[in-house]
This record gives sequence, C-alpha cells and structure tokens, in this order.
Amino acid sequence: MAVGSSNSFDLVVLGAGTGGYSAAFRAAQLGLKVALVDAHKIGGTCLHVGCIPTKAMLESADLYARVKKAGDFGITTGEASIDFAAVAKRRGQIVERLHKGLQGLTKKNHVEFVHGRGRLKGGKKVEIALIGEDGAAAGSRTLDATDVILATGSRVKSLPGLVPDGKRIVTSDDILTSDKLPASLIVVGAGAVGVEFASFYADLGTAVTVLEYLPALVPLEDREVSAELERSFRRRGISVMTNARFDTAAVKAGQDGVSVMVGPPGEAPKELRAEQMLVATGRAANIEDVGLETTRAKVENGVVRVDPATMRTAEPHLYAIGDIIGGLWLAHVAAHEGLAAVAAIVGAEPEQVDYLKMPRATYSRPQIASIGRSEQECERDGLPFKAGKFPFIANGKALIGGDYEGFAKVIAHRDSDEILGVHLIGPHVTDLIAEASAAMLLEATAWELGSAVHPHPTLSEALGEAALAVAGRAINF
Amino acid sequence: MAVGSSNSFDLVVLGAGTGGYSAAFRAAQLGLKVALVDAHKIGGTCLHVGCIPTKAMLESADLYARVKKAGDFGITTGEASIDFAAVAKRRGQIVERLHKGLQGLTKKNHVEFVHGRGRLKGGKKVEIALIGEDGAAAGSRTLDATDVILATGSRVKSLPGLVPDGKRIVTSDDILTSDKLPASLIVVGAGAVGVEFASFYADLGTAVTVLEYLPALVPLEDREVSAELERSFRRRGISVMTNARFDTAAVKAGQDGVSVMVGPPGEAPKELRAEQMLVATGRAANIEDVGLETTRAKVENGVVRVDPATMRTAEPHLYAIGDIIGGLWLAHVAAHEGLAAVAAIVGAEPEQVDYLKMPRATYSRPQIASIGRSEQECERDGLPFKAGKFPFIANGKALIGGDYEGFAKVIAHRDSDEILGVHLIGPHVTDLIAEASAAMLLEATAWELGSAVHPHPTLSEALGEAALAVAGRAINF
Repeated sequence: MAVGSSNSFDLVVLGAGTGGYSAAFRAAQLGLKVALVDAHKIGGTCLHVGCIPTKAMLESADLYARVKKAGDFGITTGEASIDFAAVAKRRGQIVERLHKGLQGLTKKNHVEFVHGRGRLKGGKKVEIALIGEDGAAAGSRTLDATDVILATGSRVKSLPGLVPDGKRIVTSDDILTSDKLPASLIVVGAGAVGVEFASFYADLGTAVTVLEYLPALVPLEDREVSAELERSFRRRGISVMTNARFDTAAVKAGQDGVSVMVGPPGEAPKELRAEQMLVATGRAANIEDVGLETTRAKVENGVVRVDPATMRTAEPHLYAIGDIIGGLWLAHVAAHEGLAAVAAIVGAEPEQVDYLKMPRATYSRPQIASIGRSEQECERDGLPFKAGKFPFIANGKALIGGDYEGFAKVIAHRDSDEILGVHLIGPHVTDLIAEASAAMLLEATAWELGSAVHPHPTLSEALGEAALAVAGRAINF
Repeated sequence: MAVGSSNSFDLVVLGAGTGGYSAAFRAAQLGLKVALVDAHKIGGTCLHVGCIPTKAMLESADLYARVKKAGDFGITTGEASIDFAAVAKRRGQIVERLHKGLQGLTKKNHVEFVHGRGRLKGGKKVEIALIGEDGAAAGSRTLDATDVILATGSRVKSLPGLVPDGKRIVTSDDILTSDKLPASLIVVGAGAVGVEFASFYADLGTAVTVLEYLPALVPLEDREVSAELERSFRRRGISVMTNARFDTAAVKAGQDGVSVMVGPPGEAPKELRAEQMLVATGRAANIEDVGLETTRAKVENGVVRVDPATMRTAEPHLYAIGDIIGGLWLAHVAAHEGLAAVAAIVGAEPEQVDYLKMPRATYSRPQIASIGRSEQECERDGLPFKAGKFPFIANGKALIGGDYEGFAKVIAHRDSDEILGVHLIGPHVTDLIAEASAAMLLEATAWELGSAVHPHPTLSEALGEAALAVAGRAINF
C-alpha cells in the first residue's frame, strides 16, 4: 500500500521538531510505517526560531569581530561594517536550505508528513485539523497508531506581568524574524539565550545591558565559567547586573523605547532606558490543546511525566520527548530522547538517556560548553571531587587563532577518578565538548582522558591538559 | 643542593623539542632531578621551524580567505589584501611568546636547561660543548645520569640529487624564516607539509603546482580523503600532478627561477617553471654526532630502535623518543613517547604507546585529520570492516560557517564494531579528531561513538552521524 493512502500507522509522531523528526526517521529506518504531524514546518523551534537562525547571526558577528582584528594577522581591509538586514537575509537562507534538506529526508525515509494541528484522542488516535498549502483549513483526518510519540515542543515564556509587544518588549521569536537593529537593548535573563543575544548585539554595536535575577551570568554553569564570561562581557563594554530586581508591572514601553527601575535587593532602583527589551526568561512546554486530557498521561509542573528509561507516559503506547517533558530544553537532548523512545517501541536495546551526560553549548563570545556536574553541584550532591584546569592562553593553537580567553576544566571523583563534569569557556569549545561527552558515556577517568593523544597544535589539547591537571600532571602549564 | 650546582642528575634529556621537554617536565613533576640539553632553543623543530610557525601562517591565510567571503555574511570591507611580511612578523611573535612560556615552565618545573651540543659517552654520561649567550663556544661540561633520554629530533631531507640552495630550491626551514612571497611555486611532495604550504601560498595568490610521486595527494590518508583534497585544490586553481616523475639532476635553478621536466611514467615530460621550488619530501633523524657509537643502542633504517612499550634502546638506561626513532614524526607522538619513557624510568604504570591510536592533523584548507587505519590499510591487514560516512554539507553548523566541503568517515570492525579508523576532511577537523582519539583509547564501538550525545548545532555532529552511518542509522543524511 502506498504511503499516504491509509490512516493506519505503526507510529504517529506529533510535532516535527528535532526530537520528532529524529524519532520518525529512526523508526522508519527500523521498518515502521510512520506519520509526522505538525501545524508548522518540519524542523520546529530549533530550525526556525531557535538554534539555527541564532547561530547563523552569531557566526556573522563572530566573523565581524575577526575582520576587525584582521590587521593583527597581516590582513588589510578597508573600514569594515555589518548590515543587519544582510545578516538576517543569510540567516533565512540557511534556515530554508536546512528545511529543504529535512523535507528531502522525510521523503527518503518514506515518512509521511501531515501538515495540520494534531490532537490526541486517547493514546492511539490522532485527530488532525489539516492545513492546506495556502495556510487555510483543509478538512480533517484521523490517524490510528500502534504507538504515538508526543513531541509538541515549547514556546517562549515571559515573566508574570511582562507582556512582550513584539516592538519594544520582544522575545527571541521576534528578533529571529526581524531585520532591524536596536541602538540599545536590555536583555532580561542571562541563560544561554540571553547571553548569546547580548554577545551578538554588542558585536554589532548595540549598547547592551544584561539583567539577571540570580547572582551569576549563565547561572546553571560552573561558577568559574560564569565569572570568566562576566569579565569578558565587561571588557567588551556589555553592562552586566546580576541579582537584578525590578517590578515587571512598572516596565514602561513607549514611543521612544522602554524603561525599567532596577537594582540589587536592598538598594534604591535606578532607571534604565533602551530602545528595546529582550525577554529571555525561559520556555513553556506546549501541553495545551494536544488532547492530553483524553489520555492517562500525567502533567506535573507544566511538563509531561515519562519513565526516563523508555520515554513512556502513564498512557500505554503514548510516549513524550523533548521540551514537552522539560529537563534541559535542548534540541540534541530531544533527538536522543526520540531515539530512546523508538528503541523502546521496537524493543531494541535501550538507549542511555542520562541527563548528567548531556552536553550543553552556548554560542556567546567566548563560547561556553559543559557536561555533567559543576563544582557547586558536586558539593550539593556530596560528591568528593578534584578539579584540573588549563587556560587557553597556554595553548599554542589558541594563541595562533588570536582568541585565547577562557579555560578547560575537568572535575573527577576524588577516589575513582571518574569524570563528573567538564566545563569549557573559550574558542570553539562547543565542538570540543563532544570529546568529553564520548568519554563520559564510556565512563572514562580523568587520567584516561588525559592519556588520549591530542594532536598538536590543537585547541583540544587544552581539554587533555585539564584532565592531566586533575592529577597535577599538566605539561604545558 | 641547588639546581645547577652539580653535574649529577637522575635524568638527562638530550634534545629540547616537544618530546624532550615533555619528558623533562613530567620527570621533574615526579621528583627526578632533570637536565634538558639542546644546542638550539627549547621547543625544537615544532615550535621554531615546524608546526607552530606553519600554523600561524595558515591561520592568516584562513582568515584572509574568510575575509574575502565576508560579504556572504553581511559584512562589508574594502578591498582586502595580505602582507606576507606582516604574516611572517606575527608568526615570529607567536613563536617567541610560546618560547618564553617554555622557558618559564622549565624554571617552574626546576628543570635545568643546559645550552650546548650534547654527545653520549656511553649510556649514562653526556658531554656537552657549551654555547654561551652570545652563541660562541663556552667550554664544556659532562653530566652523569641515572637515565638518559635521547630526543635529538630530525631535519628536513631532500631527494637524492636535489640540493636546496635556500633561494630557488627551498625547504620548510627556509620558508619559515623568510618574509618573501614567490609569484609561483612548485611543491615537491604532497604529504602534510607539502599540502599545507601549497594551500597557504595558493591563498596568498601564488601560482602553485604540487608534484607527488605516489598516485594520490596525502598518500598516507584514506583514498577518499586524498580524492576530496585533490578536488578541492583543483577548484582553488592549484595544479596537482600525481604519479609525477622527474630527474632531480635535471632540475635547473637560475637567476629567474627554477625549471623541471616532469610527467607521469610513460609520457613525455613537459617543462614546468616557477620562481621557487619547495622540497617537502620528508625528514631524516638526527642520529649523527650524538655519540650513539659509544653505546649499545641499535640504529636501523636511519632511526634508533627502541622497545615500543618502554622506549628503551638496547643500551640499559638509554631511552630514545620522537623523530629519532622514526614512525609518525609528529610532535604529539614524541610527547607521548616521552611520557611513556618517564613512566618506564620511574616504574609507574606504563603509558599506552599504540601507533594505531595516534591522531594526525593537516592544516591545509580543507583541514584533514585521521586516526587508525584507512580502508586500504584494513584491506591490506585482512580486517573485515564496515564504513559510515557523513558529508559536512548535511551539517547545520558547517552551513552556518559557510565552509562545508568534506566529510567524516568512521571505519569499524565488521563483527565487533570496534572503531578501526576515523578519517575527517573539512572545517575544524583537526580539533574534532580528539574525540575519536579518546574513543579509540577507550576501545569504543562505532555504535557507542554514535550514541554519545553531540550538541546541536556543532560540527562534531558529523562525526557522531558517521558513526551511526556504520550501522546505516544516520539521522540527518
């Protein structure tokens, strides 16, 4: 029977973001008949209003920063300038190219993409309000499935009382579909999204102030990483206020910008003005309007509860993955959860979904990447540890690259030497963390990671040296 | 007794290149009294006329290539140009900075650096013709050692009958101390050094022709990597002739350049002219004039023979490491051999020195990095294998970076799935190979490497996907 000619599927995946399409493609590879349902385009938040367009913008900002330093490398350019509209245009081209790629892969994998808003009707049926090519309603269709994976993702979330208007008070969604550059910007929230945009806009010449409620930038990272980022941001002229307190109801958005009275607790707040305010205060899972109430699946703290070994909800045959189950809210985690769900569905050897072995990457300048526990989390969990650190300034390739802020840090169990966490801040570290991810999956000790031969001269040597430093045996520092 | 006030040492290391200083620093960390002897500066070939200055030049060339594409990223510059003299100046500054770093580390580790030409007198004595600060002879000194590590490195080697004159016919030593750019260049030898310089000069506008005796560029790499590099070089306008045959005696160097009659075997040779010819045909170990004849150490095929588990020569207490024992002729391999020798000397748990787990990095554009066996080597060794490949054009971060030539390839044992080799060509792969190095040290299977979570969007995902592709399970291609 030809694909698409039936409403009966082995697997229906509701939500075509990274988690959803990864699960769909893998299931199809394993021989299942699969439908992939979404009211938006394949690729979800990550491709259309998340990781990909952000990193495309940051890549332009990064190159702009390098171009301005080109003289150091023996290269003469005229006065360099950057055109945000052109940056935005390239961003759109990259998104569209990857989107076309995913459409091709959907076909190649014989997955049927159903464009429409899907709702569960019990655990094994999905009702879809179809959307036509013109975007208009196009009838409905009901799919029957042996198993269903719910992967409806998340949306940006503001603070209570602070309502984005898309003009003065904006979210990442607004920025990623805009081609206008503000002269000044207040960024509320210094998690990965907040510091990436702060870094981007500062590179493009916007006057940026970052407000963070917690005592540190990137508050989920190891505190030494937060401190290094804050030093770097301040050197670049980015204003940073941690422990920032303000009354959301008193934020004023008018014709000429936005203003807020803000200060640390116990101090008199001062007025801060800017052309725009970016709210980067997290995301909310899309649990509404997906028919969860027709199933036995449980929702807790705004996210769907699953068995972490199989991604199964309390409803038999209904699985949930990605942002809708909370956790790290990262595309690659969603993808991994998707593969784990499919493994459980087909009865394959289970995939490890160990949230302590999920790498995290932030594309600010300097970049940040980490996996496992920070020193503070080791202390919290009562784990005796030892740490080794190696600064990029002692790494030959970093000097050659002209970009040598930051360090590599490896945290290992004091007794077993097993790696508990790796924390990187500096050049290209979002790529370097993969080595730590593989090492932690393989339960390596710090000494083993340091004994792995790192080619010279590479940035990766910093990680090897940090691992050796755990035992006080770094060579080049 | 203060350091330097005695001629009696636990360990004398003869040769202060990467292998030598790494061994010296580690031995000192473990409590040995160590002397480090060299007639040249600490850092050896790699720092002074090898990896570091080359990569510094290549970094400038790489940035120049990116600057010329800056318009694609929304960045406007005036006409860009590159000044080789300024590139060479920066190269020298980086070398000097790292050299100062090594001098500082020598002090920090309480290693005594002895500046002079050392010769073995038996296995436990080193006679040194001292060199003063002014470079003049400054008497002699004899050191007694419990153990000696010989690490005198290597020098550039030409072809029989082809004598570099430093002007028309040059070696990497000449280039790395010159600040003049030739209008045209013939590169003889397409190993790592040859293709790096070919790539560099082509980026700076020199008309480059590469001659390689063997049937492929980078002939030690997997053949698909060689083919990809050749395609890329040709696209960039670099002339490539493999299976090149010429009579070295007939190479003519005159006032206006150099000429050679060259062609594939069986064809009439054609004349090729250029301003300069770069001879990049390998290196020779520095086994002469080091007093080997006063010891029982054995020399075979121009290199010192050692027990690969301990780096010990046939002379008790005499160890040899680095280029002088041949093998891969790489700085990081020398360093690892140095640590292994020290482990053997102090009776620590032995370090693994497994030459099939040594990564290799080539900084041409595109970069190349590999570890373990190629497909051809698996065939030669009768190892049944399966391979997985993932092209960078299907990797979101590579598209974002605007540099998406090349691929990742993982070769695993057909039955056990253990990784036998990893071959990368493309953006930043010299850093990505470290993950494969750690994975191979830990005896990972391809499936395990693919199961390690790679953050999104990173170039490292290409390696993870190639590992999944071994089982036909890549998601994004």
